[in-house]
Formats: sequence, C-alpha cells, structure tokens
Amino acid sequence: MAADVADLLAVLAERGWTLGTAESLTGGLVAATVVEVPGASRVFVGSVVAYDPAVKISLLEVDPDLVARVGTVDEQVVTQMAQGARRRLGVDVAIATTGVAGPGPSEGHPAGTVWLACSTPSGLSTRCLALTGERAAVRAGAVAAAIDLGHEVVRDSS
Amino acid sequence: MAADVADLLAVLAERGWTLGTAESLTGGLVAATVVEVPGASRVFVGSVVAYDPAVKISLLEVDPDLVARVGTVDEQVVTQMAQGARRRLGVDVAIATTGVAGPGPSEGHPAGTVWLACSTPSGLSTRCLALTGERAAVRAGAVAAAIDLGHEVVRDSS
Repeated sequence: MAADVADLLAVLAERGWTLGTAESLTGGLVAATVVEVPGASRVFVGSVVAYDPAVKISLLEVDPDLVARVGTVDEQVVTQMAQGARRRLGVDVAIATTGVAGPGPSEGHPAGTVWLACSTPSGLSTRCLALTGERAAVRAGAVAAAIDLGHEVVRDSS
Repeated sequence: MAADVADLLAVLAERGWTLGTAESLTGGLVAATVVEVPGASRVFVGSVVAYDPAVKISLLEVDPDLVARVGTVDEQVVTQMAQGARRRLGVDVAIATTGVAGPGPSEGHPAGTVWLACSTPSGLSTRCLALTGERAAVRAGAVAAAIDLGHEVVRDSS
C-alpha cells in the first residue's frame, strides 16, 4: 500500500529529521505535495527544482563531467542531486527525482523512465521506474513513488 | 481573465527570456504548474522552494537582518526573493511568493495574506493579496495570481 505524505512526515518527526527535495521531472510537485499537510513546516525545509541541467550543477553540486558523459537520467546523477540537496538545503533527508516526463523520449530514454534517490544520515537508496501513460500520469507516478521511497528508507533507518 | 501558463510561456519565448520561481507558501506549486505544459523546458529553468526562512537567506540571498526585523510576509522580502532567484538560478525573469497558507495566522498576519513579486531585466512589480478559504484554496489562488502577475509584467515590458 502506498504511504501517504502524512506517514512520511510522521516518521521523520519521530526521528527528529528534517526533509528537503531535489526535483527535475517532477518540477516541484513532490514539495507541493508535502506542504499540502498542515504543519509540514515542522519537518519540511525546502526544495531545489533543477529542471535545467545547469541548476543541477550550480545549486545541487552534481559533477558537470558526469552530466556531460551520461546525461541527466541516471542513478549517479540522482544520487548526487540528493546528496547535494542535503548539503545546500541543510536537511537530514533529501529525496531526488530525475527522468523523462514525455511526451516522447529524451536523451535516448523512453518517456516514463525515472530515477529516484533518498539520502539520509544513515544511508542512501535509489530506485528506477518505468512508468506508462501521459506526462501528468508519469509525474504523478513519480511523486507517489518518491514519497513511498522516502517513507520506506526513513522507517527502516536505524 | 486569468492568463494561463501557456500564455506566460509564450510571451517569455517571444522576448527570449528564461523563467524561474522562488516559492514559500506555494511550496513548489507555481513551478509544478509551469512544467505541466509540454515544452516548458525551453523557457523554465528551475525553482528554489524556500519554505524555511533559513533557505530564503542561504539560497535566495534575502537579508537576514530584514527577516529578523519584519518576518517573511513582507514586500521587501518577496522582492529580495525574486531578485535572488534571478541571480542564483541565472534566469531573466523570476516570480516569487511568500505568505500565510493557514490554517490560522502566522507572524501576526491572517491566513490568506500573500505577497508576490516579479523581477525582470526591465523592472520589478509586487502585489499583495488577501485570499479567503482553506489552505488549498489559498495556495491555488496564490499560484493563479503569480502566473497572472508574471504574464502582465512580461507582456508590458519594453
């Protein structure tokens, strides 16, 4: 069963951890979903929406040589986005998203290809999705999976 | 009549200007609304969601003494957020939002108090809103007014 945002905020509050996001294809929709919950400000700090690759480099400290070599739809890129968000937003936990919303492929990846990462003080998890449907469905699926990943990783952290 | 996002992206593309956002109470929802339009990446670069005041200072270069003196629901603060976003995201036009989504007042301002700013290469406009309704309605109203403000300012720029 999908975790909802309130579950994620509750497990973060239990741990005493703050949350931030680093978003590419979701374009701020993970953050916007989190702040729907009244009192989210007790846990949620902010987000860097890095839609343009240049912002991934300048504000999230993603390695420009890596982006030049592999593009932006990549496990190492999403990992660096999450790690950069933890540093630049000053948060304990960061969830990152990158991928292809569509319509049509990008950088050689079909629409619906999504990489997620969650970085916490005790580790890192990544996940790759192959979503189907229109642009809005891909983005909604990516947001739900990102919330799920964050919930699982934080809940299982020691 | 309210401008829709496609109108805003079209006038930006005509001018050859890029767009970014700096968001507090809207929590990324302005950015998420912009990227609903396929091809938004031709104009839209990214966003800094500065939900916590510390992020307004660290990533948007808002003056910490100003925040200490007046709080975050303020015309000068939203102006500095927009100007900081232009520099830090490297965009031509930045739209900024700050205010009280509710429920309940914050910093002495009633829920629904919202400040907006739009900074462009040729000037700056700000707007204050007194919105009514629940948290989701306040945020939706702030997003629509932010898109409207951006559209008016860019359309009327010489």
